[in-house]
Amino acid sequence: MTSFHFQQIARDGRARAATFRTPHGEILTPAFAPVGTQASVKAMTPEQVSAVGASLLLANTYHLYLRPGEKIVAECGGLHRFMAWPGPILTDSGGFQVFSLSDRRQVDDDGVTFRSHLDGSSHRFTPEKVIAIQEALGADIIMAFDECAAPYDRNYSEKAMERTHAWAERCLAAKRRSDQALFGIVQGGIFPDLRARSSETIADLGFPGIAIGGLSVGETKTEMLAMIDLVTEVLPEDRPRYLMGVGSPEDLVEGVVRGIDLFDCVLPTRMARNQAALTRHGRINLRNAGFASDERPIDPDCDCYTCRTFTRAYLRHLIVAKEMLAATLTSIHNLRVLVSLMSDLRQAILEGRADTFASDFRRNYRKHRSGEG
Amino acid sequence: MTSFHFQQIARDGRARAATFRTPHGEILTPAFAPVGTQASVKAMTPEQVSAVGASLLLANTYHLYLRPGEKIVAECGGLHRFMAWPGPILTDSGGFQVFSLSDRRQVDDDGVTFRSHLDGSSHRFTPEKVIAIQEALGADIIMAFDECAAPYDRNYSEKAMERTHAWAERCLAAKRRSDQALFGIVQGGIFPDLRARSSETIADLGFPGIAIGGLSVGETKTEMLAMIDLVTEVLPEDRPRYLMGVGSPEDLVEGVVRGIDLFDCVLPTRMARNQAALTRHGRINLRNAGFASDERPIDPDCDCYTCRTFTRAYLRHLIVAKEMLAATLTSIHNLRVLVSLMSDLRQAILEGRADTFASDFRRNYRKHRSGEG
Repeated sequence: MTSFHFQQIARDGRARAATFRTPHGEILTPAFAPVGTQASVKAMTPEQVSAVGASLLLANTYHLYLRPGEKIVAECGGLHRFMAWPGPILTDSGGFQVFSLSDRRQVDDDGVTFRSHLDGSSHRFTPEKVIAIQEALGADIIMAFDECAAPYDRNYSEKAMERTHAWAERCLAAKRRSDQALFGIVQGGIFPDLRARSSETIADLGFPGIAIGGLSVGETKTEMLAMIDLVTEVLPEDRPRYLMGVGSPEDLVEGVVRGIDLFDCVLPTRMARNQAALTRHGRINLRNAGFASDERPIDPDCDCYTCRTFTRAYLRHLIVAKEMLAATLTSIHNLRVLVSLMSDLRQAILEGRADTFASDFRRNYRKHRSGEG
Repeated sequence: MTSFHFQQIARDGRARAATFRTPHGEILTPAFAPVGTQASVKAMTPEQVSAVGASLLLANTYHLYLRPGEKIVAECGGLHRFMAWPGPILTDSGGFQVFSLSDRRQVDDDGVTFRSHLDGSSHRFTPEKVIAIQEALGADIIMAFDECAAPYDRNYSEKAMERTHAWAERCLAAKRRSDQALFGIVQGGIFPDLRARSSETIADLGFPGIAIGGLSVGETKTEMLAMIDLVTEVLPEDRPRYLMGVGSPEDLVEGVVRGIDLFDCVLPTRMARNQAALTRHGRINLRNAGFASDERPIDPDCDCYTCRTFTRAYLRHLIVAKEMLAATLTSIHNLRVLVSLMSDLRQAILEGRADTFASDFRRNYRKHRSGEG
C-alpha cells in the first residue's frame, strides 16, 4: 500500500487539511469529487472537469458493470484510459444503487440478486464479485460492498449494519490488487449506538480510508449532522474520511468542520441540467425571466470559464432555446463553486480560521437563499 | 467599407486561396463556417469551436429574431459579446428559414408574412426589416433577404429570382452600418439562363461579397455542380463567393475547385448528434457494435481533441449510455475534419496542386465510403 499516503497538514477544531497521495496523483483535502456515473461527468469533457480544479472523480460500479461492462473497460486499459482522466478515480461498490432498486432486488447474507434497470436482466452482487468488478475497472480508491437501510427502521438498520460488517471482511479478503485502496463503509442509520459500533468495527478492520454511508437518504439535516459528529469522534485521525453522496455547499461546510475529508455528489451537475446555479449565497434559477437581459455573470466573484465568459442573459437564452451548451456551462460553474469552496476552506483550516469561515458562510448563505443578486 | 478587404493570394485552376479581412479578424479562404443557429454551435463551447480552427461562425437571423430577440442581443453588446465569439460572424437573412415554413408563410412583392414555428405567432419580414434585425445583431457579414424557390419549378424560380433582385436593391438602400459587409445572393434554381442572369444582376449591384443560394435543396449533385460552375464563371474575381448551406466533405472539395471561398452547413454538428463521424474516407456510424472494444481513435490521422484523447470504444459507450458528451466529442471531430480539409486544400492551392488533391480525395472517399477503417 506504499502508493497511498494520507498526511494531515493542519487541524483546526475538528476540521483537517491533508494530502492524500494515490497512484494517479495527490488529492488536497478537504475535497469534493465530481461524479462521472457512466465514466463521464455529464455534459463535460475531462479537460473541462480538470479546469475547474477537481482532482478526484467518482464513477459508479453498478452502471459500468451493466454498460459497457467491466471487461470492456479493462480491455481498454482501465477506467483512467477509458475516460481519459489521468487523475485519481474512486469507484463506489454498487451497494447504494442496488439497494435503490427497491422492488427489483433480493438481499440475503451472501449478497444481492437484482434486476437491471436497463433491461430487467438478472444479476448478482456479492462482496467478492464487487471487488472483482472494481479491480477490473481499476480505480485508485475502491469501496467495500455495503447495505444501505432506510434511515428510520432500527431493526433493518441493525441487520444491514451487521451484513455490512461481514461483507467488509469478505471484501478485504477478496482484494488482490495492491495499487488500489479499499475503503470500508460505516452504516447504522440514525441510531447513535449503531453508528458508534459500526465506526469502531470498520476502523478496527484496518481499512486505509473510511466512508460514511447511509446519510442524506431521507433523514433530517439535524440527524445527519449528529451522525457525522458521532462518527468522526470515533474514527481514527490517521485515515481519510469520506462522506458519500453529500454535495450541497452548506453540507460540505458542515461536513468539513466536523472532520470530513472527501465528498461526492451528483447534485452540482444534476442541478446544472435543471437550470439551477449554485453560489455561496444560495441557488439561482437561471430560467428566471428577470435575467433576460442581465449582463452580469452568474456570480461576479466566481473565476470559472462560464462566469469569465458569459452573461446570465446568454445562459437564460440557451436554457429557453433548449441548447445543450446550457448544461455544460452551468455544470462548469457549479463544480467550480464546490471545488473553490473546498480549497478556500482548506486555506482557512491552514490559517486556523475554519470556524469563522463557516459562520460567515452560514450567515451569507441564509441571507440570500432565494436571491438573484 | 475599409474594415473589409478581400485579397486573392493564389489561384490554381478556378480554385482560389485568399484572405478576407473583417472587423473581427481575418478569414483564410477557402473556409468552412460552423453554424450556431441560436447563437450556440450545438453542444460546443466557443473555446472548443476555436480549438478546431474555425474562424467564421454563422448564426441564424430567423431564430435569433424569435428568441431571444435582436433587441436583447443588442442590449448585451451584440452577437460577438452575447455568444462570446471574438472572431468573424455571419448572419443569414432568415430567407431560407422563412421559406422552409412552407404552409406557414405568405409571400408578396413587399415581403413575407409568416407564423413562428415556436408559438404560431404572426410576423413579417421585409428587406428593410431583415437588414434592421441584422444590424441589431451586429455580425460582420450580413445577407440580403432572398426568396429560395423549389429547384424544379421554372416559373416560380424566375419569379423568386426577380423578387430576390428587387429585394437586394432594397437591402442595399436600407443598410446603415459601415462596419458590416452586406452580401447579395444569387438565385435561379437549376436553370442556367436564370442563374447567369442572377449572377450578373447581383454582381452589378456592387455587393462586396456574393452568395449562391437555393442549392443543396433537392436537386441532384450533377445539377448543383453545374450551377456552381456556371455562377463562378460569371461572378467577378475580386469578391468572396459563399456557397450557402453546403458542408459535406465531398461538396466542399467540389466547391473549392470550382472557385467557392466560403461554406456553412449544420451537417457536421447535426451528424455528430446522430452518431455519425466524418472522415476523409467516408462516414462512420459510431454506434456500430464492432467498435465496443475498439481502442483506435475515430481517425488515427486526425489531430482533434477527440481523436487525441478518446477511443471508438469510449465514444460508442457514451452513445449507448446516452451521455451528452458523445455529441460534444463527435462535433469537435466533425468540425475539425472540415476545417482541416479546407486548410489542406488552401495549402494545395498555394502549391498549385489543387486538382491532384481533389482527385486523390475523390478516390479515397469513394473507396471507403461505407468503411470503418
